[in-house]
Amino acid sequence: MFEDMARNLTDWLSGKGDESTVVISSRVRLARNVAGCVFPGAAGTDTRKKIIEYFESAVSRSDMLSRGTIVRSSDLSPLDRDFLVERHLMSPNFVAGDSSRALYIGEDERVSIMVNEEDHLRIQALAPGRDSDAPYKVAGEFDNEIGSYLEFDYDSDFGFLTACPTNVGTGMRASVLIHLPGLVITKEIDRVITKITKMGVAVRGFYGEGTDVLGNLFQVSNQNTLGVSEEDTMKLVMNVTDSIIKEEVHARELMMDEALEQIEDKIWRAYGILKFARVLTSEEVMNLLSALRLGVAMKIIDFVDIALINEILLLSQPAHLQKYYEEEMSSDRRDAVRAEMVREKLK
Amino acid sequence: MFEDMARNLTDWLSGKGDESTVVISSRVRLARNVAGCVFPGAAGTDTRKKIIEYFESAVSRSDMLSRGTIVRSSDLSPLDRDFLVERHLMSPNFVAGDSSRALYIGEDERVSIMVNEEDHLRIQALAPGRDSDAPYKVAGEFDNEIGSYLEFDYDSDFGFLTACPTNVGTGMRASVLIHLPGLVITKEIDRVITKITKMGVAVRGFYGEGTDVLGNLFQVSNQNTLGVSEEDTMKLVMNVTDSIIKEEVHARELMMDEALEQIEDKIWRAYGILKFARVLTSEEVMNLLSALRLGVAMKIIDFVDIALINEILLLSQPAHLQKYYEEEMSSDRRDAVRAEMVREKLK
Repeated sequence: MFEDMARNLTDWLSGKGDESTVVISSRVRLARNVAGCVFPGAAGTDTRKKIIEYFESAVSRSDMLSRGTIVRSSDLSPLDRDFLVERHLMSPNFVAGDSSRALYIGEDERVSIMVNEEDHLRIQALAPGRDSDAPYKVAGEFDNEIGSYLEFDYDSDFGFLTACPTNVGTGMRASVLIHLPGLVITKEIDRVITKITKMGVAVRGFYGEGTDVLGNLFQVSNQNTLGVSEEDTMKLVMNVTDSIIKEEVHARELMMDEALEQIEDKIWRAYGILKFARVLTSEEVMNLLSALRLGVAMKIIDFVDIALINEILLLSQPAHLQKYYEEEMSSDRRDAVRAEMVREKLK
Repeated sequence: MFEDMARNLTDWLSGKGDESTVVISSRVRLARNVAGCVFPGAAGTDTRKKIIEYFESAVSRSDMLSRGTIVRSSDLSPLDRDFLVERHLMSPNFVAGDSSRALYIGEDERVSIMVNEEDHLRIQALAPGRDSDAPYKVAGEFDNEIGSYLEFDYDSDFGFLTACPTNVGTGMRASVLIHLPGLVITKEIDRVITKITKMGVAVRGFYGEGTDVLGNLFQVSNQNTLGVSEEDTMKLVMNVTDSIIKEEVHARELMMDEALEQIEDKIWRAYGILKFARVLTSEEVMNLLSALRLGVAMKIIDFVDIALINEILLLSQPAHLQKYYEEEMSSDRRDAVRAEMVREKLK
């Protein structure tokens, strides 16, 4: 499954959108639960199957929803699942051995809905660049559309009820994926993270909670969902994002002024290695692409575009690489094929 | 001085000669002292000046010798001296603040003669590749020619007398400069060095005694000069060289069979860094060129030749770089200009 999908760059990695030299993508995720049904973690198989059926029925009855596709987790191989996680269409947690989970993928992959992850529904909308509007609007449209078929668990005091108390209220998590090589290289990143954490946002590595920071990619998202409005949450995350962008741009200017040669060297070496290496791990590619992305943003390298960097980043990941080449590969084989793919793309 | 010389590749680095995929060059050095004169280390300025005069007089009277050039050490700037050391025309020890040393440089730099180094005369002949014949013959011809004008300190029991007892006898040191990346990478180098050391040869780094091994370049030379003939010394060094070549070639074949991908990766990465880096130290260039040289020898890279690698190696050295660009440079500036030179040469 998904071999064709692997051949296309997903919209949120198109390199378009505002502030694309710093912000990769913006995302809004809404947690929703069906009223009268036990949350997935505590629910039996019957309840969970019922939730999928409710959702499928809503999809089939809605013109808007029926434009997307539903896949049952039981139809997904481990490789398929890894592929969808790499594509940010589902969370790493969304791994199941039974049929009681499902994933909805909307047109252009701008929306995905996980059924029976931590909550009954997790509606997620993605857009490239810094986007305070589209993901929020799109997620809201899907929320409304589904809400016209299903009744959500909603408390007039608290707001939306969710499996984890940290999501109660708006059930909304707004986040941006942001590239901060300047702050990492100038060693300002810890100061900035400390500062913005105090403003009510969380900062994580590329793949969400608890993961290492690879490729200087950080995910910034709101901490609170209770007693705040959706609009204020969006405003907070975007304000913090703008403040981080400012700090990052400043750090890059500082490097230009004070260590241009060293930065140019780092960037060109990364390019040279990507262009000629015969063995590349996905971690190394992420770190080399980080330097290349910085080089493009700083106009040191003018013949590579952000979309190509994003494409290589996506295809470098293990499941994408295997789907792209339609071959199951050992880790060693992947490292060689990955290097081949990178060379091909940079030709 | 020497700016023009810096623009030309010295003959011993031409990449020609036998076994040039392993052996860079072959060298014969003869230590000679003028009879009746105190050795330079113990001699006063007057005696040392007299030695230079004797030598200059011999040069001026001989058709063969007068084809070369003599420079007085007092006419050499520190940069000139470094330049000549890098070119292997004089030893690192041959540094002096007074006028009592001189250097003779023969046509094509195939011969050089240090006057008043450790011995009155040190005649050195160099040739590219594994050469059991030319340097030995050329050094001998100069030895004979000079000997027809000057009487050497010679004892019928011991042979030639020299300042250091380790040179007494033939006064001859035959050596090869040999590139052993295969033995280093496969970790066989210590075993091979132990083995050949027992055969009566010494192994040193590129720049002679006590220096670190850079770029996997080793210098192999005879240990003994007493009670052996010149012919046997040459035979020993060449036999040992052939045995090392065999081991190195075997190690390369082993790598080809067992770790081709890793070796190719190492070689191509080195090429990528050399081709794109903006800052390069001379040490790093030596190590990267070692990988490139191996790549050319193993036919992994077929568009670069050994002469070009040697040229980059030579020009990468600090004094050569400054002579080549006719500019005195700080260490930081050199690292940037060196990277520029390497990129230019690899275009």
